[in-house]
This record gives sequence, structure tokens and C-alpha cells, in this order.
Amino acid sequence: MNTHSSKPKHKSGRGSSDKRERILEAAIRVFAQGGFYATRVSDIAKEAGVADGTIYLYFENKDDVLISIFQDRIGKLIEVLREVAGRDEPVDERVRRIIELQLGLLEGRRDLAEVITVNLRQSSKLLKQYGAPLFTEYLELIASVIAEGQRSGVFREDVSSRVAARALWGGLDGLALTWALGGGDKDDASRDAALKKAAHQWGELFLDGLRGGTHHA
Amino acid sequence: MNTHSSKPKHKSGRGSSDKRERILEAAIRVFAQGGFYATRVSDIAKEAGVADGTIYLYFENKDDVLISIFQDRIGKLIEVLREVAGRDEPVDERVRRIIELQLGLLEGRRDLAEVITVNLRQSSKLLKQYGAPLFTEYLELIASVIAEGQRSGVFREDVSSRVAARALWGGLDGLALTWALGGGDKDDASRDAALKKAAHQWGELFLDGLRGGTHHA
Repeated sequence: MNTHSSKPKHKSGRGSSDKRERILEAAIRVFAQGGFYATRVSDIAKEAGVADGTIYLYFENKDDVLISIFQDRIGKLIEVLREVAGRDEPVDERVRRIIELQLGLLEGRRDLAEVITVNLRQSSKLLKQYGAPLFTEYLELIASVIAEGQRSGVFREDVSSRVAARALWGGLDGLALTWALGGGDKDDASRDAALKKAAHQWGELFLDGLRGGTHHA
Repeated sequence: MNTHSSKPKHKSGRGSSDKRERILEAAIRVFAQGGFYATRVSDIAKEAGVADGTIYLYFENKDDVLISIFQDRIGKLIEVLREVAGRDEPVDERVRRIIELQLGLLEGRRDLAEVITVNLRQSSKLLKQYGAPLFTEYLELIASVIAEGQRSGVFREDVSSRVAARALWGGLDGLALTWALGGGDKDDASRDAALKKAAHQWGELFLDGLRGGTHHA
């Protein structure tokens, strides 16, 4: 599906993929600090502690770095989501796990949250070209779990499973955005706890809404 | 609250505020087409049919144009929302009206949807500095209606009214984003109808979820 190269990573190794990962992590920090457009490739190199030219061994240009962050992180998320979506567990439990997993990706990572919720949208071209296929795959996965719940009579059928999936994502994105951009006066642990609590409430509201039609309609 | 100048508009007149509005409308089109960063002030001038220098009679720079679009449009929305929030109507009816109003702002305006959902996020600095106060005002308005419903026993109390307000916004933003970026194969009328239908389903899911705790908890 994805024509973008994504080399295998060996976290315990010290090979070239370690350096690639180090560059991506540095880029997440500088993009979050200065924004995508204001950041130069040399800023990423400096933060990663590598020569400017080294960046170009792994990435074509700055756009490629941003796309790689997105594809790597979202790619990993989709992998785990696919496993959860296919589990032999009640559908509402699976929806809860899906919400937890997505927040797990962001916990303690305000910079990553800011890059994903804000910076990626900096280019609608990038978003349309590279984001769309992964995003569609992500939404279809969630929609498939909801549709299964509809078929088994747990969830209402008068709401499209795709609309519900987009709303679930939108709600999470809204919480993550206000969390990423919110005041930095609290420490990371209490901020993480607040995000977790908000997401839990959102999950229960969403699930009761999804069950709603079966009671009222 | 807002230190940004916003001259009164006289839609029927042919004065300077007409020209300002024409520049804003042109900017919405070119930002949506080419993205905020790739757009030059001269592109906006060309689209508006005015001289480059004219832009600077109304706006300080390109950032100021984007901020003005946001402040004008969202400012108008908040005005109407405030009226609806204070109405003597059942809270769930008011929540439905709030959802309708927001989509009314976007209907037939894919370009505006793209500017608001994508382009505004292009600068986290702009978003933090100018977006945050208006956004907070907007969220507090919605949260106040939800809190009223909680006090009167219509809505569950185990979900924070602010979390619910952010989720409501997030879900709408998610629908608007996928709508704005989605394929352009359908005509505007059927696209608008699809958005309206999706928003209606989202509203009913959200309202049943908000009522949920009163039945189950």
C-alpha cells in the first residue's frame, strides 16, 4: 500500500536504523518546538547530533522526514489495532482497548502529539497524498469493529459505522490537540493522568451513544 | 478579549469593508488551493483583483489575513452560538442546533472548511496565540449548555462537561476534515447532503451517549 521505503528497525542494535530512529526522534522535538515550516534540515541534524549530510543518507528532504514520522508511528499503531480488532472479545471491550492504545502512543509525548495533530496538517498536499491511505486504513479498521457490534445487535444500526469511526477519531484528536497545546504548568505525570481520564470519559460516552439506538429507536 | 482590529462590515455598501471582505474571500480560495505557506500576498491580490499594495491597507501581512479569516468566521459563529445557548429550549434541542449551526457555516464551502480545519493548524504559534482565546470561548459555551443539562438531570454527570464539549467539537472537526479533503467526484449538493446526514447521526450518537449515564450508572 505504501510506496515509501521503511527500513526494518533493530532497537537493540547500533546499526544504521538506530541513526534513522535518532533523526526521527530529533525531528519530532524540533518540529514541535518551531513548527514544520520554520525548521531547517540543519536544525534536525544539530538536534540529532549528526552532520547535515547524514540526514540525506536516510531521507530525501524535510517533507520525507515528516512523512516518515507519520508513517512509522501510525503504521505501528495500525499493526497493533489490527490485532485488537480481530480479538475474540466483546466489541465494546475492543473499542475501549482501541482508545487506550491510541493514547498510549501519545502518553508523555506532547511533542509527538503536536507533530501528529498540528504539524502534519501543515501541508494539505502531504496530508492528502501520504496521510489519506493510512488514515483510511485506520478508519476502516475501527469501522469494522463497530460494524461487527452492529451485526451482533450490541450497537445501534441507525448510525453509519464509518461516521461513528470518524467521530471516535475526531473526539480523540480533539482531546489530544487541546492536551498538546494546553498550558505547560503541570508536570507530565498529572498531564498524562488528565488525558487518560478524559479519554476514558469520552470512551464511555461514545459507547453509550453507540448502544443508545438499541434502547431508544 | 481580542486585540485584533475588526472593522464593522456593511454588506450592502460598497465601501472599504466590502473590499476587505473580498480580499478575505479570495484568500480563503487561494489558501485552500495552494496551502498557507506556499501562498504569497500577491497571489491573494491577484485572486481578489486588487493591487498588491491594497492588501496592506487592510492587513499587516499574510499571517494577519489568516488570523482575520479565523476571527471573522469563528467570531460570527460564537455570536450565534451564544444566542442559541441562552434559549429557553430543552438542552438536547440546543445541542442539535449547535451542531447544525456549525455545519451551516461550512455548507457549500469546502474551501473554508479546508482553511479552518487544515490551514489554521499550519502554525501552532498562530493557533496558540490567536486561536486559543476564541477556541476556549467556543468550548466554554458548549460546555455551559451541557453542564445545564447535567444539573437538570437530562445528561449524565460522570463525564466532564468540558471533555464532552471537546469531544463534540472533535467529532465535528473530524467529519469536516474528511469532508473537506475527500474526493471531489460528487457535486456540491450531494456532498452537502452527505455531511448533513453524517452530522445528524453524530449528534444523535453524542446525545444518547450524554444521556447514557442517567440510564446505566
